[in-house]
This record gives sequence, C-alpha cells and structure tokens, in this order.
Amino acid sequence: MNTIISIGRELGSGGRTIGRTVAMKFGIPYYDREIIDKTAEESGFAIDFVKSQEQKVSAYYKLCMGMSYGYGNQILSLSSQIYQAQVKVIKELAEKGPCVIVGRCADYILRDRDDLLRVFVYSDIEHRIKRAVNSYGMNEQTAKKEIQKSDKERARHYNLFTDNTWGSRENYDLMLDSGYLGLEKCADLICEVASQRS
Amino acid sequence: MNTIISIGRELGSGGRTIGRTVAMKFGIPYYDREIIDKTAEESGFAIDFVKSQEQKVSAYYKLCMGMSYGYGNQILSLSSQIYQAQVKVIKELAEKGPCVIVGRCADYILRDRDDLLRVFVYSDIEHRIKRAVNSYGMNEQTAKKEIQKSDKERARHYNLFTDNTWGSRENYDLMLDSGYLGLEKCADLICEVASQRS
Repeated sequence: MNTIISIGRELGSGGRTIGRTVAMKFGIPYYDREIIDKTAEESGFAIDFVKSQEQKVSAYYKLCMGMSYGYGNQILSLSSQIYQAQVKVIKELAEKGPCVIVGRCADYILRDRDDLLRVFVYSDIEHRIKRAVNSYGMNEQTAKKEIQKSDKERARHYNLFTDNTWGSRENYDLMLDSGYLGLEKCADLICEVASQRS
Repeated sequence: MNTIISIGRELGSGGRTIGRTVAMKFGIPYYDREIIDKTAEESGFAIDFVKSQEQKVSAYYKLCMGMSYGYGNQILSLSSQIYQAQVKVIKELAEKGPCVIVGRCADYILRDRDDLLRVFVYSDIEHRIKRAVNSYGMNEQTAKKEIQKSDKERARHYNLFTDNTWGSRENYDLMLDSGYLGLEKCADLICEVASQRS
C-alpha cells in the first residue's frame, strides 16, 4: 500500500475515527493533531494559538475586511502564516511515505501527487448531533450549534486558501456518508480503494 | 439483495455503464430509457417529445419567466407534467422490488424509502471528454460543449423540481469519482454497499 490518504470531514461525521482505523489497518502513520505541534514549531507560534486559529477563518475577519480598518488584514496575515507553515509540514510528512492526514486542506496541498487518495466524510445533521453527544458529551442543542459553526469556519478557511469549495465533489475521489454506511464500512471502502491503487 | 439503487451522474462519467453492470451482477432490472416509454404512456405525450424534454430545463424557460410573457409558465407546465408522470412511473417501478434507476431525480423521488441507496458518479472534465469521444464518437470540442450544456440542464432540472442541489453531497449516500476509481471498481463498491445493507 503506497497511498497517501487525505480525509476531509464534517464535525461529528466520524472522519477522525475512520482515519485512525484506516491507518491502523495499514500500519501507517495517522496525522491529525500532531500537525498542530509541527506547525507551531515551523511557524514559531505557541501551540495553543495555532490550535485556536488553524482550520478556521472567523466571521470577524470578514467583518473587519469589510470595515477596512486593517484588522482584517492582520488576522488574515496570521492565518496565512499558520497556513503556510502547515503546507510545509504536510508536504514534508507526505514525503516520508504512505499515511493518513485528516483535514487541513491536505487534499489541495498534495493535489499534484500521483499517490494521493482524496476522501471526504459527511453525514446528515441528525447522525452528527448524535455522534457529538455520545463522543464529546455535548447536549443536543450545543452539538447542533457547534456543528453549524464548524461547517461555516471550515468552509471559510478551505475556500479562502484553496479557491475551491469545501465538501464539493470536484475536490475528492471518494465521498462517503458515514451516517448511512457506518464508520467501519467507510474505513473498509477507503482501504479497498487505497489497496487497489497501489 | 433488497436494495433500490439510484444513480445520479454527470454526462461522460460512465454512470449508465456502471448502473448496467451493477444490475447485471445482482440480476435485477436496470431502468434508464425504459422510463421514457413509460412516462410517455403515463403522460400521453409522444416518446420523442418526452425524450427531448425530460431531465432538463432550458435556459429559454428562465428567460421567458424573467420576461413575464407567459411562455415560461407554459414550458414549465409541460416540464412539470412530464416530471409528475415520471414520479408516478419511478414510484411504481420501485414498488416492484430491487432495481437500478439512472438519473431522473430518483434519489429525491424515492427518498422516503428505507431500502434506497443513493449514488452519484462524477469525474473531472478530461476523463469525461475522453469517454464521450470514445463512446459517442464526438470530437473533443463538441464533447466539451455537450458536457457543459448537460451539466447546466441537469442541474436546472434537478434544482427546480427537488429544491435540492444536483450533485451536492447531502442528497447522496455514496459519491464516486469514476475517473479516479475506474468504472469496474465503481460498480464493485456499489454492489458491496448494497449487499451490506440488505
């Protein structure tokens, strides 16, 4: 198996669990939060700051850009520095060999590689709320709000830095509804496709 | 295998070939152009008229609607009659048992059935042009134009009658890039998922 697998995912879709399962089945590295540490190291920002800023662009940025006060540019500049550091980290990780990378525009960053399988995992809101309640201990109302907020933030971040549309089919090779398929089946299908390509 | 499989697809993605392969593997009916004959019968329109009007809403309709001359309403009324006849035909076919239905908003029309697997097959423009050239004998320039025109017509038709967005992930359980995966693998994955659900 010589494939690098990027997994984009909606909050609550189980994309991270699926990614970990795939990585375990193949015995290859799984990169998710490890990327935060490496990005902090690369960019010189504190880990907590990277964690709070990566994979999202706040609505506040757009507001500030509209007001032309310059705050927007400052926020964008910080986001952009973090993104650029992540680009370098992700490209270096991919160079090391087959792996699973969750989120962080990896599908776009690594798009020129022939050994890339680009997956997106999604689900209807009911399954995602249920999963967020069970996995993160949220109540239903909070889970729904967090999911809606996360969708907006991830889409804004992805669309800003890639000029593509987050979750839109042209960016992915395989798109799986984890609510319908179940997490185990999603992992199986990804493994099957990744094995075939190698 | 007790699953009804709807396959939405982009022109040139090989969705029809995939659908036929799946139907053959399971030994279940494959409905595609047969739906035109049944829709003609149901609506009272000629087969050729149904063929020329179904699965598309022309840009002319939108233009007429904008001009408020009433032509738009007439065109919509005809399209709507054909669509309503297709809804009835597709629901009746689904009642008969497991089958593959290609296109025609079947994912939306049958959305309340528990035994439905909703698939969408897509691909990048290069693979689709290549396929259109090889399968339909078009030249590259014509193939590109036909593909772009078809995408617009199918999207307009689907979006008008379903209030959803054609090709957008929330309408499908499994989305496959046939250019990356190959037609045979797409058919295999659909069979695997459909078998598991039954």
